[in-house]
Amino acid sequence: MKLARTLIFFLSVQICMLANTVNASGLSDLVEAKDWQTISPGIWKIELGDMSNEIRYTDFAAEPPKLEVLNKKSSPIFPFNQNPARYIQNNDGRIMVYIPTDLTETIYGYGLQLDGIDKSRTVLDLKVDHWGKGNGKTHAPVPFYISSKGYGVFFNTARYIKVYTQVGNRKDANNNPTPLDRNPLPEDKIGEWDPQPGAGAVEASLIADGVEVIIIAGDNMLDIVSRYNLLSGGGALPPLWGLGFWNRVHAEHNADQVKADIAEFSKYNIPLDVVGLEPGWQTKSYPNTFEWQTKRFADPEGFTKDLLKQNIYLNLWQNPYISPEAKIYDKMYPLSGSHMVWLGIVPDYMLPEARKIITDQHWNDHISIGISGYKIDEVDGFDNWLWPDHATFPSGTPGEVMRQTYGLQMQKMMYQDIFKKHNTRTLSMVRASNGAAASHPYALYSDSYDQLEYITGISAASLSGLLWVPEIRSADNGREWLMRFQTTAFSHLAQLNAWSSGTKPWEFDDVTDDVRDVLNLRMQLLPYLYTAFADYNQKGIPPLRAMLLEQNFSTKSEVIKGTLDSEDNPYATDEVVNRNDQYMFGPSILVAPFYDKFPEERDVLLPVGNWYDFYSGELVGNGTKITITAKSLDNKIPLYVKESSVIPMLTKAVINTGEAYGHPLELRLYGTNSGTVRIYEDDGKTFDYQKGNYRIREITVSNGEFDEVISKNGSKAMFGKIEKLRIMTK
Amino acid sequence: MKLARTLIFFLSVQICMLANTVNASGLSDLVEAKDWQTISPGIWKIELGDMSNEIRYTDFAAEPPKLEVLNKKSSPIFPFNQNPARYIQNNDGRIMVYIPTDLTETIYGYGLQLDGIDKSRTVLDLKVDHWGKGNGKTHAPVPFYISSKGYGVFFNTARYIKVYTQVGNRKDANNNPTPLDRNPLPEDKIGEWDPQPGAGAVEASLIADGVEVIIIAGDNMLDIVSRYNLLSGGGALPPLWGLGFWNRVHAEHNADQVKADIAEFSKYNIPLDVVGLEPGWQTKSYPNTFEWQTKRFADPEGFTKDLLKQNIYLNLWQNPYISPEAKIYDKMYPLSGSHMVWLGIVPDYMLPEARKIITDQHWNDHISIGISGYKIDEVDGFDNWLWPDHATFPSGTPGEVMRQTYGLQMQKMMYQDIFKKHNTRTLSMVRASNGAAASHPYALYSDSYDQLEYITGISAASLSGLLWVPEIRSADNGREWLMRFQTTAFSHLAQLNAWSSGTKPWEFDDVTDDVRDVLNLRMQLLPYLYTAFADYNQKGIPPLRAMLLEQNFSTKSEVIKGTLDSEDNPYATDEVVNRNDQYMFGPSILVAPFYDKFPEERDVLLPVGNWYDFYSGELVGNGTKITITAKSLDNKIPLYVKESSVIPMLTKAVINTGEAYGHPLELRLYGTNSGTVRIYEDDGKTFDYQKGNYRIREITVSNGEFDEVISKNGSKAMFGKIEKLRIMTK
Repeated sequence: MKLARTLIFFLSVQICMLANTVNASGLSDLVEAKDWQTISPGIWKIELGDMSNEIRYTDFAAEPPKLEVLNKKSSPIFPFNQNPARYIQNNDGRIMVYIPTDLTETIYGYGLQLDGIDKSRTVLDLKVDHWGKGNGKTHAPVPFYISSKGYGVFFNTARYIKVYTQVGNRKDANNNPTPLDRNPLPEDKIGEWDPQPGAGAVEASLIADGVEVIIIAGDNMLDIVSRYNLLSGGGALPPLWGLGFWNRVHAEHNADQVKADIAEFSKYNIPLDVVGLEPGWQTKSYPNTFEWQTKRFADPEGFTKDLLKQNIYLNLWQNPYISPEAKIYDKMYPLSGSHMVWLGIVPDYMLPEARKIITDQHWNDHISIGISGYKIDEVDGFDNWLWPDHATFPSGTPGEVMRQTYGLQMQKMMYQDIFKKHNTRTLSMVRASNGAAASHPYALYSDSYDQLEYITGISAASLSGLLWVPEIRSADNGREWLMRFQTTAFSHLAQLNAWSSGTKPWEFDDVTDDVRDVLNLRMQLLPYLYTAFADYNQKGIPPLRAMLLEQNFSTKSEVIKGTLDSEDNPYATDEVVNRNDQYMFGPSILVAPFYDKFPEERDVLLPVGNWYDFYSGELVGNGTKITITAKSLDNKIPLYVKESSVIPMLTKAVINTGEAYGHPLELRLYGTNSGTVRIYEDDGKTFDYQKGNYRIREITVSNGEFDEVISKNGSKAMFGKIEKLRIMTK
Repeated sequence: MKLARTLIFFLSVQICMLANTVNASGLSDLVEAKDWQTISPGIWKIELGDMSNEIRYTDFAAEPPKLEVLNKKSSPIFPFNQNPARYIQNNDGRIMVYIPTDLTETIYGYGLQLDGIDKSRTVLDLKVDHWGKGNGKTHAPVPFYISSKGYGVFFNTARYIKVYTQVGNRKDANNNPTPLDRNPLPEDKIGEWDPQPGAGAVEASLIADGVEVIIIAGDNMLDIVSRYNLLSGGGALPPLWGLGFWNRVHAEHNADQVKADIAEFSKYNIPLDVVGLEPGWQTKSYPNTFEWQTKRFADPEGFTKDLLKQNIYLNLWQNPYISPEAKIYDKMYPLSGSHMVWLGIVPDYMLPEARKIITDQHWNDHISIGISGYKIDEVDGFDNWLWPDHATFPSGTPGEVMRQTYGLQMQKMMYQDIFKKHNTRTLSMVRASNGAAASHPYALYSDSYDQLEYITGISAASLSGLLWVPEIRSADNGREWLMRFQTTAFSHLAQLNAWSSGTKPWEFDDVTDDVRDVLNLRMQLLPYLYTAFADYNQKGIPPLRAMLLEQNFSTKSEVIKGTLDSEDNPYATDEVVNRNDQYMFGPSILVAPFYDKFPEERDVLLPVGNWYDFYSGELVGNGTKITITAKSLDNKIPLYVKESSVIPMLTKAVINTGEAYGHPLELRLYGTNSGTVRIYEDDGKTFDYQKGNYRIREITVSNGEFDEVISKNGSKAMFGKIEKLRIMTK
């Protein structure tokens, strides 16, 4: 930083006024961002400043951009031809990107923001951290937003970035509101003074040599997000087993106790595909050795294989901080950063040597014996746990960049050097991620335990190429337990994580049948859900998604005008209610879970078009707000199906996904018209689908009959024949 | 930023391992901070990196360091001879200062941290903002701490600075704890796993060319703080009227209503010295014109002078953001920053021209007609109100530095170009301040309305050269109202601020007499309090102070061991209880207010030495914890007086400080020994005291008699003769 300012202080006499004044007058200082390069139709990028030493999130994508799909997309016009994007770089090491907006535009996104997806008129610190309750810090603070005007903006940089979204009025902007005096207000303006006047831009601020900006336009909101996901390599396609039910066992369990747990699941007839081992399976866990603790697990390979025979996959918890007692410690020591976490060294995975040490160990000790994946914990925050911003790493990567990308580095390393290398898919978990991560088969999670935040996470994740697990650990009563299970069953990854209490799904007698029912329903929906993930992979379409991404649906925060209160609200600040408590599960099913704020009765906003009750097939509304009660649904989760949808399901629930292979199907048609549906099939386990080894079954239902065509036949069948057609709507 | 790192990514093959490894091994990377310069005995400074373009907080002090006092101080040894302070500056624009600590050392301070003064084992973002409830952001985030080992450290830079206090274990430090595995813990270590292992340093991290570090050692904790204040120019000496009672009137009041309010105070016999006008006295307030609204105040000069005749001083609210309708707008426009606040321009007061425009206007329109000072509001935050970090200013000062210093700039400008220039003292208010501010006659305040935070603020302010107003605006009942008044009456500036409700001190009949009593007591204590401020000015001794600054008193946070709870406390994080709910008011009186958590009964920790009840003179304890009830004190505020103290008071309460001039005194002696006291006197209004125009009355009380000597006689008398001696302890 060579600070060129004239250092003026109160006692100084001389000042170079003319030059300085010219340099600071607002918008006119800014430089137009002119030389946009086209990546594919509707996607443009520009490098502002010097990117030669900067790191991009796209560097960490699992797969390269799916240009073959993107290049077939429509060509929307560049959104900033009239009002150009601009930037300014000063001598103080800071660069700012100015993206114009209208005052009426709504801005959504910025990653896993669990307080709501509408981020208009906010200031956010996009920094990987524990969930910061609205300040922008979160497990995946993706610097990508989409606008109600039909474009997205992605700041493709691994720096801390602070985004002033429609906040901060430049003095020479031409779209500022007119100042209203606050006190006294003119009589006709009482209540109209706004403590935060709208501003017509997103100003993204970072300290870096340069920043890459990517603009994405599309035919609609869903298309913008899909293009973002395709640019990130297409969405992850999990193995089929990943979509079954997961249970993390008590952290102190040994092999026999794990087996006993599994037997109990079987006894209670509760689906189970994945068992997660928590800290304690290894000789040391805080910090970590990654080596099996033989007192508890005497024969890891035999144990793992025994479980696999029952179609049960094992997932291993870890955090990446290495214990002095680990065999790899000495080799890793010189390849680690200046600071420790929980007294374990922090490997620098920007170094190929470091990656080799850990992935060799993981392959040899875990994956080669049948372990299915990991839960990579504690790569997010807090500041008082992780390395400081000034920590140094042997690769020279700044501590800040390591913080923003450590979760991505772990995902990429394991994807590339373990799973893809050995042609075995995983679905795993990670507590921090970031931009361009759609192609990574990892679901995020949090220590938040707020039900609405967990539901909102599904919508938020869908806007930024993320998958999300709303955890269940405990509940105060059966009703809460059931509501949590219902949300979880209709999320990306369905898991119970009672690592501390060991609580089981059948903890509350009064709801055990209901819990089983909703998990069974998820299992029955496997063909539908797996196909939704295939669309994520091939087309970038998120498998679960915010209502915003539906056609004919507009979502906007409700603004409750603030009332002056000298103690509680001295600025009469408005309350913005940003309720994202319903979402789409696949292309056809709208989910509106009950939760603590609305445990017995809630509203559902239906998009325009006919919507039908999933269970009864009855028409429930069209572009309307309906009110439903838990009682009227017999405590089932509220699900609504779009007109002319055909839902492919297993004819019966299965106890695990192993039994889904070859299982007969039924189709359910909703509405009074004909309908079509695709079913995607492959081996469910390997990356062979990338070579075209998959099948597409195209089905048309009309006049009470169905017609099936195999439109792509690169793989043997996955599910069985269609045995049943149910015309749900009378 | 010329980022010299080797850019390595996953697909890259080459890597310069050796050089990089050497560069990142922890403590061994750091450079010893060697060339400390002595400022005065016990004060050393060093410039790390390049300070030529950096701005220091000491640049904004109202007065130069009081070297003549500092040079007479003792010469403690430099605290880092054994274990040196270190730093590292990387090519990424970042500099980090490493100050070693013991793991057992307690660190206090960092400015106005309203959650407690013990800041051991924390990470704080020291940034001017609204109070951030413990993240370091606050109205005055002074980068100055004092250690239980007897030294202080001041990072003298106007940059955002993040301090990792005993957080972050460097891998090659020699004072790290031994790692304990978390799961399973050895049987004899159950409950001992610590999610935040202690670390042996303060690591202060900032993005800047350089940083100046000042180390202050002293004979004891109070001496360290006193030296810091002397380095800052000595503490502010308010005019006598500033120590009376303040009332801010309803924002919509006109001149007649203000006069009616004053008459009511008189009728209820409630002391009143200062009336504050809130937004509305000017033609436009959000943004501001600074010009009188003649509809409400037809004759500002006549009105102000009428009030002065009644010994009532007027204080004017303002924020600094200038309305397009202000007469000075056009001249100020080119001298303002890129962004507006509330649609008003933000003057760049680093420019002498800008300072001249505003101080000329303020002098002509306000101060020259008798206005006593200002309440400078909203110079602190939030991010969504103030200018962004990347805002540019014509002086070239970075937006971040403007944010950290805007409150300081306003204080310095007004001190220098208005008040001192015209030889008239002020006591004013400001909502943001920062380092080296002791010599500024401004008290801080907040929109926090938590009683304990308000009480804690008094202790916190005392460690960093700040004054503090715990506001009163309303209460739910008489008891709360009284408790708030009692704390306020024993704070730096005693004010009621019912700007929105217009609530008066006599709002709750049941406590009106008690409210009057405590305000009267403050008025009676004027000689004692004014002398305490003179000691602040001349010796740097804070007039009110944290118990920590008392000899024979040790305060440490209580640590409540965390209990594992998978939902609420998954890391079994300890709770740190940092209770700072008693403090010293002047050298002799310990104040332990009742507040919402302890409204009827509370503990008081008495330092070693005999302590006496203020009202009865009875011995209450010595180094003990006592429990007191409101009832036993007849609802009076608990006050305890140190052994051998002599308290100089007015014989009776006065309705305003104008009546204190020449008023006879009484002395109260506590304890069974003799005692001495000094009384400081000057004209109470001007800066003539700086030329030696003040008086010191030295009084000794023994054997039931007192002896008075005028040890310094540069001014005429302020208070009257001593008429009464009360031997309080029988």
